[in-house]
Amino acid sequence: MSSDPDRECPVDGGIDQQEMVSSKKSAVLVDGVILNGPTTDAKAGEKFVEEACRLIMEEVVLKATDVNEKVCEWRSPEQLKQLLDLEMRDTGEPHHRLLELCQDVIRYSVKTNHPRFFNQLYAGLDYYSLVARFMIEALNPSVYTYEVSPVFLLVEEAVLKKMIEFIGWKEGDGIFNPGGSVSNMYAMNLARYKYCPDIKEKGLSGLPRLILFTSAECHYSMKKAASFLGIGTDNVCFVETDGRGKMIPDELERQIWQARKEGAAPFLVCATSGTTVLGAFDPLDEIADICERHGLWLHVDASWGGSALLSRKHRKLLHGVHRADSVAWNPHKMLMAGIQCCALLVKDKSDLLKKCYSAKASYLFQQDKFYDVSYDTGDKSIQCSRRPDAFKFWMTWKALGTSGLEERVNRALALSRYLVEEIKKREGFKLLLEPEYANICFWYIPPSLREMEEGPEFWAKLNLAGPGCPQLGQLSSPPHDL
Amino acid sequence: MSSDPDRECPVDGGIDQQEMVSSKKSAVLVDGVILNGPTTDAKAGEKFVEEACRLIMEEVVLKATDVNEKVCEWRSPEQLKQLLDLEMRDTGEPHHRLLELCQDVIRYSVKTNHPRFFNQLYAGLDYYSLVARFMIEALNPSVYTYEVSPVFLLVEEAVLKKMIEFIGWKEGDGIFNPGGSVSNMYAMNLARYKYCPDIKEKGLSGLPRLILFTSAECHYSMKKAASFLGIGTDNVCFVETDGRGKMIPDELERQIWQARKEGAAPFLVCATSGTTVLGAFDPLDEIADICERHGLWLHVDASWGGSALLSRKHRKLLHGVHRADSVAWNPHKMLMAGIQCCALLVKDKSDLLKKCYSAKASYLFQQDKFYDVSYDTGDKSIQCSRRPDAFKFWMTWKALGTSGLEERVNRALALSRYLVEEIKKREGFKLLLEPEYANICFWYIPPSLREMEEGPEFWAKLNLAGPGCPQLGQLSSPPHDL
Repeated sequence: MSSDPDRECPVDGGIDQQEMVSSKKSAVLVDGVILNGPTTDAKAGEKFVEEACRLIMEEVVLKATDVNEKVCEWRSPEQLKQLLDLEMRDTGEPHHRLLELCQDVIRYSVKTNHPRFFNQLYAGLDYYSLVARFMIEALNPSVYTYEVSPVFLLVEEAVLKKMIEFIGWKEGDGIFNPGGSVSNMYAMNLARYKYCPDIKEKGLSGLPRLILFTSAECHYSMKKAASFLGIGTDNVCFVETDGRGKMIPDELERQIWQARKEGAAPFLVCATSGTTVLGAFDPLDEIADICERHGLWLHVDASWGGSALLSRKHRKLLHGVHRADSVAWNPHKMLMAGIQCCALLVKDKSDLLKKCYSAKASYLFQQDKFYDVSYDTGDKSIQCSRRPDAFKFWMTWKALGTSGLEERVNRALALSRYLVEEIKKREGFKLLLEPEYANICFWYIPPSLREMEEGPEFWAKLNLAGPGCPQLGQLSSPPHDL
Repeated sequence: MSSDPDRECPVDGGIDQQEMVSSKKSAVLVDGVILNGPTTDAKAGEKFVEEACRLIMEEVVLKATDVNEKVCEWRSPEQLKQLLDLEMRDTGEPHHRLLELCQDVIRYSVKTNHPRFFNQLYAGLDYYSLVARFMIEALNPSVYTYEVSPVFLLVEEAVLKKMIEFIGWKEGDGIFNPGGSVSNMYAMNLARYKYCPDIKEKGLSGLPRLILFTSAECHYSMKKAASFLGIGTDNVCFVETDGRGKMIPDELERQIWQARKEGAAPFLVCATSGTTVLGAFDPLDEIADICERHGLWLHVDASWGGSALLSRKHRKLLHGVHRADSVAWNPHKMLMAGIQCCALLVKDKSDLLKKCYSAKASYLFQQDKFYDVSYDTGDKSIQCSRRPDAFKFWMTWKALGTSGLEERVNRALALSRYLVEEIKKREGFKLLLEPEYANICFWYIPPSLREMEEGPEFWAKLNLAGPGCPQLGQLSSPPHDL
């Protein structure tokens, strides 16, 4: 990398057409390509970006808060394929045609920033995170080495440090990953490495059956992780939950003993703070006691519930989280940082992440650079190029302050509370259980069933109600809580 | 999700302050939060986005082609921490202060779109991909289900189909992943699943030692993948390469026999098309013969070299690639689609990806939706939320056409050729080997060594030359080939 403008540079895509013609350089022809000929019309490219940005601003950002706009102009896959010009051809399209395509893409896409958009655990628009995301795209960094991402690596360090503070650890380590599922995988692999570092080199072949414990209400990524990591889904032990979806600690301990008796090797307990469907919080303190007794790694999947840590009112939901060995927490859900923004936080400060993940590639992580190479965090990751997702959260935190983030959480949970009370009052709706977080599970009872007794026939009929009549509704983050 | 504007909605973040005051609704207070009070000043938020976009346009996009601008205003980590206001405080910052922060972030970040920016395998600015990336951020989709990402899922399907065509398969399957490293992991897991589907449930414990083969010049992600997947780095067999960095087929076969003799279970050969350092292409046809003879999955890591498939002149570098079972190919490198844009392509059409990866989460992948749920591709992935990276490549393909992409590849390789000839002519530079791709490896010989004979002393001294005097230079994609 060089920033010396005086260096010779005979071939330069930056020189525009005008300059090339007047410079009277002779053409350099290699393999049929005129190297010093004009490559692109930068002015036209810039104009295209400007026009497209105007379109994005008008059609997506400015319409975001308008409830009279549609969330989505729905078309089936077959219809949409007819409406969109998806095909890639031999010849390119002119800019005006590309802008029409952009318009079509926007028209038929779901406006996830619309006040009435709900989806599995995300919604809403955060202006600050959006700006951060535009900056990331314009700068196009990769956070593997400090030399190519100086600012973004320092930002990641600062954000991780702050999140660690809210977990209640004095120090720690961490990394931003492309999704909470990936964070859970990282944690599972870390726990395995801690249990037996040799596995990194030797693999699992010939070892006793490793086994891990999580609740029956955990996220499906635990199964995906066990399968991907070669542990096998049969070795995920699903611990029974109580009526509110919380892991039963006695059941956990019973299952650990049972596994030991069967000759398996327990190495990890994964508790959930904010389960996907019910929004339940496992009792972390009691689970931590058990993990201590049995010498097991405690991972807390707080991908969804972690944001409650920012609220003095609600952080008690995660009471005991400071006793975890690792925590997954996704600011892209309730805190609206933009998909994806997901941290894995690790209590260990003996460089466990690096020891577990490093491959020491010498072409990228040279040890004789002219700065402190501990800032080259890429070797802590399973990825090579990696996006600076922490920056999206940093910008929002800067804009709102901790107090603003706290308000966001409080408001989301107050809105949920309000909805619960409305459901109770309204005919034809039946609350499944009193929620402790922002997931509200209820049944819609069709008029034909409203007079029927709640016996087996009632439930069978309710279950048969077709699509378009949602049975189990789930309200996640608030429609538009900014 | 609903788009009916007539539905009752007592609490609505979309209603602006003005409306709330005049509506004479009484305040709804829950848990100390006024639910129907103003939540955010949308107008101010929109203004902030507009101002920040102007800044991004001026300071990043428009300056991108100016060689007189600096690639980076370099500061050490210690200095940069002093210069940047990284701390997140209890109170938020006003918009003008946030804009200053954005300016600081831009100032001290590396301008990866600068004509003189080089890094490990990426460089340059593509205006079309940039627009696609801005659109993605504004729409904030997650490509797990068709209902939330209708357009982006169809785009991914179309792009995968087209890439599959260039590989030379009649049909196939695929997925876009957060990086080539992750694609290589996917392939390794797929090969393992194909070898023994039971591993998904049972894990590796008790099985014979699985072993895989790759060249000594392969990307470090092969080691990371073997470790992460529980196979172990010791079970990655590095096959010797010839003087040009290409895997020696006879050596491969010898090692497969050797592994069998030792009781290990070979299941995968990973060939590389475009190695990281030398840019070497393994002889795919000969390797495919060996894989056929031994019944082994052939994965081709063409993360870097795959783009050559778009050039009629250079696609012969990947001769035989159609015989692979899977191919990793990153359009974010030479084709400049923006980090990240990485495809894993799979020849199998028996839904192997889905069988291998699915966890069938019922809260997300309901089977009784009102559209063809085969478009809900999220269960083919290890991620839950996932970004629509294919769209970045689609937009560029639409804009340039296949012929424009071909030109981009041809130009990159012609530029490399030019540089090779210049190095040969210039005193103090020594070419390491004749490149076959865009990686050019050379030594810089300091003046004090130029007269010395190339014996052990010469090489020892050359190796000792400190940082700031790069020994092994690598030119990847062209500085600015658009």
